[in-house]
Amino acid sequence: MKKELIGACVFAQSGGPTAVINASAAGVFLEALKNPCITKVYGAAHGVVGILNEELYDMGQEDIEELELLKTTPSSALGSARHKLKNFKDDPSEYQKILEVFKKYNIRYFFYNGGNDSMDTCNKVSKFMQESGYECRVMGIPKTVDNDLYGIDHCPGFASAAKYVATTFTELGLDTRVYNVPTITVVEIMGRNAGWLTASSALAGELGPDLIYLPEVPFSIEKFLEDVRRVYEKNNKKCLIAVSEGIKTADGKLVTEGGRGTDTFGHVQLGGTALFLEDLVRKEFGVKARAIELSLMQRCSAHIASKVDVEEAYEVGRQAVIHATNGETDKMISIQRVSKPGEAYKSEIVCADLSAAANTEKKVPLEWIINDNTYVSKEFIDYALPLIQGESQPLFVNGLPRFAKLKKVKV
Amino acid sequence: MKKELIGACVFAQSGGPTAVINASAAGVFLEALKNPCITKVYGAAHGVVGILNEELYDMGQEDIEELELLKTTPSSALGSARHKLKNFKDDPSEYQKILEVFKKYNIRYFFYNGGNDSMDTCNKVSKFMQESGYECRVMGIPKTVDNDLYGIDHCPGFASAAKYVATTFTELGLDTRVYNVPTITVVEIMGRNAGWLTASSALAGELGPDLIYLPEVPFSIEKFLEDVRRVYEKNNKKCLIAVSEGIKTADGKLVTEGGRGTDTFGHVQLGGTALFLEDLVRKEFGVKARAIELSLMQRCSAHIASKVDVEEAYEVGRQAVIHATNGETDKMISIQRVSKPGEAYKSEIVCADLSAAANTEKKVPLEWIINDNTYVSKEFIDYALPLIQGESQPLFVNGLPRFAKLKKVKV
Repeated sequence: MKKELIGACVFAQSGGPTAVINASAAGVFLEALKNPCITKVYGAAHGVVGILNEELYDMGQEDIEELELLKTTPSSALGSARHKLKNFKDDPSEYQKILEVFKKYNIRYFFYNGGNDSMDTCNKVSKFMQESGYECRVMGIPKTVDNDLYGIDHCPGFASAAKYVATTFTELGLDTRVYNVPTITVVEIMGRNAGWLTASSALAGELGPDLIYLPEVPFSIEKFLEDVRRVYEKNNKKCLIAVSEGIKTADGKLVTEGGRGTDTFGHVQLGGTALFLEDLVRKEFGVKARAIELSLMQRCSAHIASKVDVEEAYEVGRQAVIHATNGETDKMISIQRVSKPGEAYKSEIVCADLSAAANTEKKVPLEWIINDNTYVSKEFIDYALPLIQGESQPLFVNGLPRFAKLKKVKV
Repeated sequence: MKKELIGACVFAQSGGPTAVINASAAGVFLEALKNPCITKVYGAAHGVVGILNEELYDMGQEDIEELELLKTTPSSALGSARHKLKNFKDDPSEYQKILEVFKKYNIRYFFYNGGNDSMDTCNKVSKFMQESGYECRVMGIPKTVDNDLYGIDHCPGFASAAKYVATTFTELGLDTRVYNVPTITVVEIMGRNAGWLTASSALAGELGPDLIYLPEVPFSIEKFLEDVRRVYEKNNKKCLIAVSEGIKTADGKLVTEGGRGTDTFGHVQLGGTALFLEDLVRKEFGVKARAIELSLMQRCSAHIASKVDVEEAYEVGRQAVIHATNGETDKMISIQRVSKPGEAYKSEIVCADLSAAANTEKKVPLEWIINDNTYVSKEFIDYALPLIQGESQPLFVNGLPRFAKLKKVKV
């Protein structure tokens, strides 16, 4: 146990929102508000930008009931940002501004909630504070539906998105096979470089996709058409396909950039990967084809969030405060799976190396990508299925979700 | 009470599926299987096509537990079809085939579950049976997410789709406003000619869309851009728009067919209304824009179905059997609202005129479309809000919905 550090804390949210990012916020706020080391609890508007602009909310002014509702409220309640800090050796001005704000409000705890880029920001701020000699404990709190953070078994936000994807596939699996006519359906799922979320479509089992394409392996249009033809002929002229938005051809280009000269029609600008492939299969097979993008719904559908995910997201927030006030700093709060496949799922909250999380991207292991790169293995199912267990029960009032309403009292 | 009619029944599903169409199937099957007038319960594969092809399932072979699960299983469990019967004066061959099958299996009850086109089929079969002198009681069972059926207060399937749309808007409303950057989002909702489902986005209230465009009124691109600009300037450079897939310009053309010469780029073929408008606002405002299609999810998301809808859908199926065995025929089972706005919602199941339902389309009343054709009135909210009450609780097993698995034993 290091020496006690008394002061204010600031929490901010950064990057793409998730269905459970606010559960981590609830964990931080509810723990910090009762923690004897913490004198004031601030929330920054729009990530680090809110610190730079001195846009801080006094979270002590909020109703506890509303903070509790954050557990089941999607999106980033404080607002988010995609702001990359320069290297402080190149341009220290923003770091100096942050330090100035921290000093002004006696901020001694900095909790930053986000994905890879946000852990990079968090890491840079942490190293700067150490160098500057200003005592401030810095903790990264992970979130991302992409699940591509290093140093953590799985990332808060991923499981709820995976549950949305898999649930939606059980429903689409029935809907897209309802007519006795040839049909090819291409469903596009988030993940620029990592295919975790697209792979989750396999959790839907026999109702799920026939073919799954991840960005971890090069995508070939010719092979894709062969794969589709094989399934289509076998499955009574039906084919349901899950495809990651980030699939790239062997030369590293997104499929929407290459292939068949279609870019001259402005397709790249207009549509995504699924729309491109839909057009392709319609022309090739001359049948009814449909592109479906799960779009923002996959990251904000709190109404079908995973209970495991909600609870873990809350806990990483809470434990960030506990670990920091106990003396930890320069860390990312992490989830470690302690159960083995087949055992009842169990995880522990631990501290991980912040620098490593900031600079490494975790992808689906290549050996989990099977069937000539068109499906995922049992190892993936064993990994992901425990995470989507339990249905979060957000409060419904008058037929619709009742999400947290914060007062956002500015300091 | 008419004379008792003893014989077999056949039930079939037609047109686009909904989240609750199988609840009506459950109502028909569970009632028919115990009804003393009904000797055998058949299900036809793929609507009337299954009757023409003599593809009938013996529903008595199914496990009762699986039939119960149909209440929360989306899509059409027997398969659907979009098959239009010719006028029997022009071509009686299909009618004669149907009669032949009915005679062969002693089918005395015909239950047909669908929307406008299906009520047309049902009506034609009913009139043909009367003319032919073969005693067969015919009942239409309504379903459509479009809610455009005449002779019914609201159509089974609509409320669950509306609950999906409104719930999704509460979540998208938070997600699309999360960044402090200009953003315009266009969400496309089903409804070729009737805007009921698009209007339901208004149920999300302040989290819902700023602007709503229905197909009931002509769409002007110039006015649309003015509307967006007004909201965009007022709302901190954010605008969330709900638009029906079927909006048409004053000349009756879909917007994707007209406007700004974009059709030369093949947009019509590639994308829908939202994609077209997204492209338009991006060019006009030079900001981040996003098109979201709620696609098939809006009609198959059983996991967020309305409890009121599930119960009513089940009841219309059950009552179709009861009314038919009590002597009714040539009718569509209908829902009549007996409560007034402000009172606790209450409905009754009654019989409606089948011919009228077959030939009339019900649209959103023009006086409910307000704010210079960019929003819907309190009358619409009073109409729709009671219908989305209660959350259907489908069975979840191992983290995912467990839908009905029928044996489909062929006769």
